[in-house]
Amino acid sequence: MKAYTSMTQEELLQEKTALENEYKKIKELGLDLNLTRGKPSPAQLDLSMDMYDMLHSGIELVAEDGTDCRNYGGMEGIGEAKRLLAGFMGCWPQDVIVYGNASLSIMYDSISRSMTHGVLGSTPWCKLDRVKFLCPVPGYDRHFSITEHFGIEMINIPMTPEGPDMDLVEKLVSEDDAVKGIWCVPKYSNPQGITYSDETVRRFASLKPAAEDFRIYWDNAYAVHDLYEDERDELLPIMNECVKAGNPDIVYQFCSTSKVTFSGAGMSAMAASEANRESIRKQMSVQTIGHDKIKQWVHCRYLKDMDGVRAHMKKHAALVRPKFEAVETVLEQEIVSRGIGSWIKPKGGYFICFESMEGCAKAIIAKAKEAGITLTAAGAPFPYKKDPKDSTIRIAPTFPDIEEMKQAAQALAVCIRLVSAEKLLQA
Amino acid sequence: MKAYTSMTQEELLQEKTALENEYKKIKELGLDLNLTRGKPSPAQLDLSMDMYDMLHSGIELVAEDGTDCRNYGGMEGIGEAKRLLAGFMGCWPQDVIVYGNASLSIMYDSISRSMTHGVLGSTPWCKLDRVKFLCPVPGYDRHFSITEHFGIEMINIPMTPEGPDMDLVEKLVSEDDAVKGIWCVPKYSNPQGITYSDETVRRFASLKPAAEDFRIYWDNAYAVHDLYEDERDELLPIMNECVKAGNPDIVYQFCSTSKVTFSGAGMSAMAASEANRESIRKQMSVQTIGHDKIKQWVHCRYLKDMDGVRAHMKKHAALVRPKFEAVETVLEQEIVSRGIGSWIKPKGGYFICFESMEGCAKAIIAKAKEAGITLTAAGAPFPYKKDPKDSTIRIAPTFPDIEEMKQAAQALAVCIRLVSAEKLLQA
Repeated sequence: MKAYTSMTQEELLQEKTALENEYKKIKELGLDLNLTRGKPSPAQLDLSMDMYDMLHSGIELVAEDGTDCRNYGGMEGIGEAKRLLAGFMGCWPQDVIVYGNASLSIMYDSISRSMTHGVLGSTPWCKLDRVKFLCPVPGYDRHFSITEHFGIEMINIPMTPEGPDMDLVEKLVSEDDAVKGIWCVPKYSNPQGITYSDETVRRFASLKPAAEDFRIYWDNAYAVHDLYEDERDELLPIMNECVKAGNPDIVYQFCSTSKVTFSGAGMSAMAASEANRESIRKQMSVQTIGHDKIKQWVHCRYLKDMDGVRAHMKKHAALVRPKFEAVETVLEQEIVSRGIGSWIKPKGGYFICFESMEGCAKAIIAKAKEAGITLTAAGAPFPYKKDPKDSTIRIAPTFPDIEEMKQAAQALAVCIRLVSAEKLLQA
Repeated sequence: MKAYTSMTQEELLQEKTALENEYKKIKELGLDLNLTRGKPSPAQLDLSMDMYDMLHSGIELVAEDGTDCRNYGGMEGIGEAKRLLAGFMGCWPQDVIVYGNASLSIMYDSISRSMTHGVLGSTPWCKLDRVKFLCPVPGYDRHFSITEHFGIEMINIPMTPEGPDMDLVEKLVSEDDAVKGIWCVPKYSNPQGITYSDETVRRFASLKPAAEDFRIYWDNAYAVHDLYEDERDELLPIMNECVKAGNPDIVYQFCSTSKVTFSGAGMSAMAASEANRESIRKQMSVQTIGHDKIKQWVHCRYLKDMDGVRAHMKKHAALVRPKFEAVETVLEQEIVSRGIGSWIKPKGGYFICFESMEGCAKAIIAKAKEAGITLTAAGAPFPYKKDPKDSTIRIAPTFPDIEEMKQAAQALAVCIRLVSAEKLLQA
């Protein structure tokens, strides 16, 4: 297939006319497909339903240490839940505080606490004139919503195949004491599916921030969400590296079981150094009577340990992988060969991040919408919803069924080609 | 029995010597009883265990409106949960936002949001020099911990048998725009068990605050927690009164199922006007992907409606009432007759609030502790843990078993008598 950039004006015009016909036919199909949210499919949720066969009136809801999981108390979570989620995060059980149903709420809470109470005795951020966060882009829209909600200034950091541009991170963190944090999804990053290299993790652990209250917000959301058994990415556990670098307090790590068992009905956790936890505990003792220990109990009995988690995640992968492959096959055949876009093949996570030609993403998303395919809004993976190159399109393949996914991918390919041809004709 | 105040010095000395002997014998029993926390007993928690027989792999976890309760979404809760908890709070289902496992966290969050973002567009409280809250006393220690945590100045408001002293409340609220809120437990108040009269509720609804961002924090924690079937208190629903008074935005109401099903593993809710909810929704959409809808689903199927809730609460009452009566019988026989203390007989809730002679509470609690009976720390039901009269002792009868409760009450009576005699001898 010929690359669009090698086509003559005439060839492009011909191509455009043919694509307009194809696009018209697609519109006539009356599709209604939604590729916006990284949600598990019903079939994935079915995988965990037998968890509830473990909960019944004949059971004793008692934790390993004798705690009655039905009553108040146990603010930091039951021991077996700490142990299990430490496995997700590559840290020690004692590093872990177990929370409620969503890690997003823990991150919100961490920022909110820093606004009102500072970090380990620092000035509360609400008393400062400027607070800044570094935002590797493209990134997770909900991270950026939190920082925007609190009026925190966001600075784009380009992603590389190894993780965020660490030269820039090191420079900004060490020079500017208004820089208080950085959002990271270190494994199978949202949306590109990049896993940070060992060197990147070590450079994070060794940061020398100008601000004593700078923290790395390490959202390990896809810690166990591999698509392939034999070529999964390994993320170097950051907390141990921080300890080795003499920087134990610099990181807050987060994870959840939302895409392992049930979304919004699982458990979440934070891991942090003893000093950080001591300070967080003070807040928690005011804020909560403890999180849901029955849910912790049943999750621990059901998933057992990391072997159990891996075995369970293989079942997810078997459902999800064909959907990723369907999209990738179409993109490879229809787009790469024509030189009008690219993506990094993810080995896990929930997204494919397509990079169109510059200045085309908005138009492609609008065209797809008109044909009944809803994609994540252009700009969503960027602070202030502004994609400087207008080229990033986040595709979430997990929720639709495989046939829908194929249909959507083919229709999307036509939209990409049509918009790219139009763009080149304008040039 | 002779009142201590009518005794001669000599009689008091005799009494004291006899009591010292009794106290010594109690100490020799080596008791280890804890009357500090308003926790349900294991037998109460057993009452709800059959809820979990409704959750199993064969069930469809679908809400009335078709929502898959296992997936993301439904930020404000499923319709049937809103309806059920509206019944607790005497409001309309549309007034309700369903949250996670604890109403305490909603209250914390409401204050935290006001600190960082203000209330309906008002100046964020963290930007103000002074923020004050009115605190009816004695009250709920965890309320006061929240306001103290945020550096909010707390002002004591005396309780009357009808509720807080409304003359004082009206005066302070209308005169001082630094007064931003008042903590209320309007039914079976913690710790006195007082239910606010209709007039008190109407005066609350008609408050004319100097501060536009003043809110009543209406913690309806014991909405359905009656001890007696035939003489239960009825609380006038406040939200309707606020609407009638042209004051729809003045109240935030809270409730939970923590002492209905499982403590810390139930669901909680907030009710507020449309304007308040609209503003809260903006925050929630940043803060959470929605609360646990599987828990909502099973609670709704299990409790069904307010008739179901009342029937379930009768079973709780049958377990709890004898424990309250055990304490009250002892106090009546040993203390009232001697004129050295009083309490308001509660018709519901979780506490008995004993008022000793002035200046005796600390000493009584210390004496009890020495004899193996742990009571809530002196001062706990007051802002800054300071009981101005040193006379309030909160007794939580629900958790220990009935025999332990009787033993504890008798031992406590000896401590009260001994400290009172000593006090009168010093006078």
